[in-house]
Amino acid sequence: MPDPSTLFESARNGDRVALARLLSLVERGGDESRSVAGLAYKSPGEAYTVGITGAPGSGKSTLTDHLIATGRRRGLGASGHAAAGGDGAGGGQVAVLAIDPSSPFSGGAILGDRVRMQSHALDDSVFIRSMATRGHLGGLAVAVPDAVRVLSAVGFPLVLVETVGVGQQEVEVAAATDTTVVVVNPGWGDAIQANKAGLLEIADLFVINKADRPGASQTRRDLDLMLDLTELGEWRPPIVETVASTSEGIDALWDTIGRHRDHQIERGALDEMRRNRLLREFRQILVARVEEVAALLVADHLAGITEAMVAGDLDPYEAADRLLAGMIRDRPPPSSEA
Amino acid sequence: MPDPSTLFESARNGDRVALARLLSLVERGGDESRSVAGLAYKSPGEAYTVGITGAPGSGKSTLTDHLIATGRRRGLGASGHAAAGGDGAGGGQVAVLAIDPSSPFSGGAILGDRVRMQSHALDDSVFIRSMATRGHLGGLAVAVPDAVRVLSAVGFPLVLVETVGVGQQEVEVAAATDTTVVVVNPGWGDAIQANKAGLLEIADLFVINKADRPGASQTRRDLDLMLDLTELGEWRPPIVETVASTSEGIDALWDTIGRHRDHQIERGALDEMRRNRLLREFRQILVARVEEVAALLVADHLAGITEAMVAGDLDPYEAADRLLAGMIRDRPPPSSEA
Repeated sequence: MPDPSTLFESARNGDRVALARLLSLVERGGDESRSVAGLAYKSPGEAYTVGITGAPGSGKSTLTDHLIATGRRRGLGASGHAAAGGDGAGGGQVAVLAIDPSSPFSGGAILGDRVRMQSHALDDSVFIRSMATRGHLGGLAVAVPDAVRVLSAVGFPLVLVETVGVGQQEVEVAAATDTTVVVVNPGWGDAIQANKAGLLEIADLFVINKADRPGASQTRRDLDLMLDLTELGEWRPPIVETVASTSEGIDALWDTIGRHRDHQIERGALDEMRRNRLLREFRQILVARVEEVAALLVADHLAGITEAMVAGDLDPYEAADRLLAGMIRDRPPPSSEA
Repeated sequence: MPDPSTLFESARNGDRVALARLLSLVERGGDESRSVAGLAYKSPGEAYTVGITGAPGSGKSTLTDHLIATGRRRGLGASGHAAAGGDGAGGGQVAVLAIDPSSPFSGGAILGDRVRMQSHALDDSVFIRSMATRGHLGGLAVAVPDAVRVLSAVGFPLVLVETVGVGQQEVEVAAATDTTVVVVNPGWGDAIQANKAGLLEIADLFVINKADRPGASQTRRDLDLMLDLTELGEWRPPIVETVASTSEGIDALWDTIGRHRDHQIERGALDEMRRNRLLREFRQILVARVEEVAALLVADHLAGITEAMVAGDLDPYEAADRLLAGMIRDRPPPSSEA
């Protein structure tokens, strides 16, 4: 296999096989992943990133499918540099990452999604890739921005990131994208209530998909009430109703994504967000590397520690302190109050 | 406030206020939490732990409520030491931990649960406690076993652990309990499919709650098919149908929990499980302590690192390596392939 910089050069010239290989390297983690990330780092590109998140069955994949078509046709509108790369008519290339975090709570949905998205398979300007991140140092929180950075660096102006969608991964993906779309369905009052804090934290806009079903207006009222009761910043997440099966509302959704992007550009939020993203990645990588060191130490001493714990001579806190004392240079282990 | 060992002594003598304070210490984390855990460690008790997990709205709380009543009335049956503490008729004390992991994806449900469980408020033999774990070193994965250990040490023979239920927290709670009950509802075919790997990993038994609704038999077939397609150990997770609102199926559920416990006792699995639990806690604590050390280092150098990253002079991997080199004694940073 060619080395990362050769692949990178080919991918920039439109070679999709080379691009797929680069993303496989990112997915796998390891030293080559790191080289790829470093190359992308040096020529970051200008991609705008939209995350699409929501529970399994909410219709995310069909929505994503429509957003691909709309992105191809319309780009992200006239106002932003992020829409560059489109032709004169505003259209452009679109990349899609479908995230399978390899967590015990996912699986199953991706294959169907990929089959469904094959409607774009013959369109050279659409690149679709599902991605697992089990081996990646720093996991999802680092692998997604790395992959987005690669797609941006090879010239995509728009990257859609779709999650299969349960729990923490949504937070991670939201942190890695510029606009986060949260998809809910009519009748989800209880689920919305239960996930309130999480939804507010990540949503830049809400989509009520399957809005032709009973309960859509109640769900809108639930979301509105939740937003009313929350101290929001300058941007109040709009609520868009769609029926993905008939394309209803897709153009309105696209316009709303564009409005959010413009809002962020106007107040300079994109730079701040991307800066925070770097810090977050750095912290994740640091923690992962430190855990590797700890794992090696544990491996060396595991048998003795286990016996002492099972015998009741050592509790897990004491065991951890003992190992740590042998590992850290200079600085004493902090008190757990720190 | 009295010191942990005084509180611990009072709690063992039945003082519920002292017990609540001990659990507050565990919840908060820090040095006192550690003292409490150490005390519990020295007199571990014999509690049997049942985790009840499932999505918001599945009826976990009502089920838990019934299990409290059944546990009071019947204990866990005649065969196990874990049922000790009951009176001659087999009944016993019951403690309930309702876990609010303080994750962005929870909140909202706990207050309602606590109100609902007030039906046991006048029963001295029932102790109900909701628990957040934001401050705890090692998080949920350590706080739950610590809290369970405290409840066991002060004499509860049965501890129910209920999650509010999304994603990773269920895995953590399952790892901390002896029997894990996964609650699903009729019509959850898609959700079951999407969460297949996760459900199989954690479920010792399945409950189809609200089994009087349409789709219960289809859901049972979905679960059965999923189990058929999986290589299982000696224990095939049984499927129990309940209607928590009318108590239907609760006795059958209780019997099934008892069968699972007996099965584990017979093949010596409980000791192995508890040993693995110690190792897991130890690893979590070690990682958390290491992260504390890393956080201090980052704080010292953050400004410089951020500027270099924003300027594009340093990618997050290089930044992490540089810090790590200053932190770890002797052993060189492992390659990311390790």
